[in-house]
Amino acid sequence: MDIEDLATRIEAGERRALARAITLVESGRADHRADATALLERLKDRPAQALRIGLSGTPGVGKSTFIEAFGLMLTGQGLRVAVLAVDPSSARSGGSILGDKTRMEHLSRDPNAFIRPSPAQSQLGGVARRTREAIDLCEAAGFHVVLVETVGVGQSETMVAEMADLFLLLLAPGGGDELQGVKRGIMEIADILLVNKADGDLRATATRTCADYAGALRLLRKRAQDPQGFPKAMTVSAVEHAGLDKAWSEMQALADWRREAGHFAARRADQARFWFEAEVREGLLARLKREPVRGAMATLGRQVAEGAITPTAAAEELLIQYLQ
Amino acid sequence: MDIEDLATRIEAGERRALARAITLVESGRADHRADATALLERLKDRPAQALRIGLSGTPGVGKSTFIEAFGLMLTGQGLRVAVLAVDPSSARSGGSILGDKTRMEHLSRDPNAFIRPSPAQSQLGGVARRTREAIDLCEAAGFHVVLVETVGVGQSETMVAEMADLFLLLLAPGGGDELQGVKRGIMEIADILLVNKADGDLRATATRTCADYAGALRLLRKRAQDPQGFPKAMTVSAVEHAGLDKAWSEMQALADWRREAGHFAARRADQARFWFEAEVREGLLARLKREPVRGAMATLGRQVAEGAITPTAAAEELLIQYLQ
Repeated sequence: MDIEDLATRIEAGERRALARAITLVESGRADHRADATALLERLKDRPAQALRIGLSGTPGVGKSTFIEAFGLMLTGQGLRVAVLAVDPSSARSGGSILGDKTRMEHLSRDPNAFIRPSPAQSQLGGVARRTREAIDLCEAAGFHVVLVETVGVGQSETMVAEMADLFLLLLAPGGGDELQGVKRGIMEIADILLVNKADGDLRATATRTCADYAGALRLLRKRAQDPQGFPKAMTVSAVEHAGLDKAWSEMQALADWRREAGHFAARRADQARFWFEAEVREGLLARLKREPVRGAMATLGRQVAEGAITPTAAAEELLIQYLQ
Repeated sequence: MDIEDLATRIEAGERRALARAITLVESGRADHRADATALLERLKDRPAQALRIGLSGTPGVGKSTFIEAFGLMLTGQGLRVAVLAVDPSSARSGGSILGDKTRMEHLSRDPNAFIRPSPAQSQLGGVARRTREAIDLCEAAGFHVVLVETVGVGQSETMVAEMADLFLLLLAPGGGDELQGVKRGIMEIADILLVNKADGDLRATATRTCADYAGALRLLRKRAQDPQGFPKAMTVSAVEHAGLDKAWSEMQALADWRREAGHFAARRADQARFWFEAEVREGLLARLKREPVRGAMATLGRQVAEGAITPTAAAEELLIQYLQ
C-alpha cells in the first residue's frame, strides 16, 4: 500500500481516501495494522484541529434526528462535519447503529458531511482504538467538527468522553424518574445536557426537566476545566430545529474558553497518554492468547478446575514459567 | 512462620488462628504472600464444603439487621456462620462497612459466628483475591455457611457472585422506581430476591413490590442452573425475624438441587478457573509498575502527550522493547 499517496489524498480532503483509511484501521489483519500505524504516524502533524464532540443518549431520545439537524446547521455555515458511531453492542445485535444511512437522510447526502457507520465489533478495546484512529483521520482530512455518537452501553460513554473535547448528553423530557434513570457517573462527564423534544405538547415538560437537570448540575463538584455557568442544561427541539444555534454557540464558547485557559491542549495530552497506557495493557494481555502461553493456561486451568492446585499458585507458576 | 501448625489450628476451628490467617492473606508483603499461598495450598483438600452465600443490597435496605437476624437463626440451629464484607470503596471512606461490630451486636458475640470486617483497600483486584482466600480459610475452618456481604459499588456484586454458590439481593419495599433503581445486570446474577421490611406500615407495599420483582424475574432468560421456580422473590422482615426460615429453606433446596444436578461442583470449577485467569492478567499487568518498564512508560508517555509519537506507535515500541 502506498501510505504516502493515501496520506496526501486524505490531507486533500478526499472522502474516498478517508473511507478507505478508516477501513484500514478497522481491519484486524497484521499487515493492515502496520499500514494503519504508519499512516497515522505520517498524519500526526496537522495544521488544524477539529472540534471533537462526544454525544450520548438513550434510545428513543432522538439522537439521529438531532445529529441530522445539528449537522445540517453546521454544514449550512460552511463547516465540514464528520459523524462516527460507537456501538459496543453491535456484534451482538448484528447490526450497526448507523448502518442505515436513511437514519440521517439529508446529512448523508451533504457533500460537506461524512457519515461512518459503526463496524460490528465484539470488544470495547478494539472499538476504542478504531474510533480514536478514525477521529484522527477525519481531523487530518480537514473536518471542522467530528461528532462521535454512542448508544451508551456499558463503558462506552466514558470511552467516548476520553476521546472528545466536549461531551453532550441528549435527554428526553420527563419527571424525576428520568433523572434517576441517567446512569451514575455520566452527569460528571457531560459538558452540556440537551433536553430534546422541547416542542408541541412536551415543551413545558422539557422546560421543567431542563430546570431539574440544571439544579442537579449545580450539586456537582466544580471542575477546573469549566468556566462560569458550565456544565449547563439547555432545551432543544431537533424536529423544529430550535435551540441548535444556541447550543452550538455554547459549545464554541466553552471550547474557546478552554483553549485560552490551556485546558484544551492539556486534555488532549492527557487523553493521548491515557490511550497509550491502555494500548500497552491490551498488547500485554494479548500475549495470553498466543502460544505457548495459551496452551499452558488451558492446562493449568483444567488443574485448577479439578482442584489439584489453587488459582493463586497456578497463576504464579504460569507467570514465572512463561511471562517473566 | 509455621504454616503446618497454623493450618492444623485452622482445621481444628480455632478462631484466633483463622483471624491470623486472614490477616496474612490481606497483607501486601511479599513474604506474607508466599506464606499465604503455601497455607492455602496446604488447606485446599477439605473434607466438607461451606455454603457460600453472596449478599448485596443498597445502603438503608437493612443488610446488617438481616445478617444479624439470619446469622443468629443459623447459629441457633447449631450451624457455624462466617460473615465477610467486601467494600471496594472503603479506601476512600477510610472506614469499613463491618468495622463497627455493634452493627451486628449479638451475632458478633456468638461463639458459633465469625465476623470479619472489610480491610481498607484501594483496588478491586486485591479485594477479590483477599476475599476469595478468606472464604477458603473459613471453609477450611469448618464453617457451614460463609456469608459475603457487598455494598454493591461498581463491579463488586459480579465479583462476589463469582465466588458464591448462591447470590441474594436484599431490596426495599417501594414502587416502580425501586425496580428501575436496581442496577442493570444484577437481576441476572441473583438467585433469590428478598424484599425486606415486610412489617408494620410497609407490609402491603413489600408484598406488592415482591410481586413486581417476581414478574420481572419471569421475563429473564431461563438459566440451566435453576430448578423450577428459581430465581424467586420473597418477602422478609429482618426486625421481626419473619420469613428467614422460609428463605433458608429455599436456599437449601436450591443448593441441594444444584448439587444433585452437578451444577454446584461445575460452578465452583468454573469460578476457580475464572480467578486463575484473573490472577494471571493481574500478575502480568503488575510488570508495568516495575522497572525498567515503568520508567520507559513514563518517558514514552511524555512523548505521546507532546504529540511526538502516536499512542499506538508508542505502545508498540514499548511492547517490543520491554515486554516480549
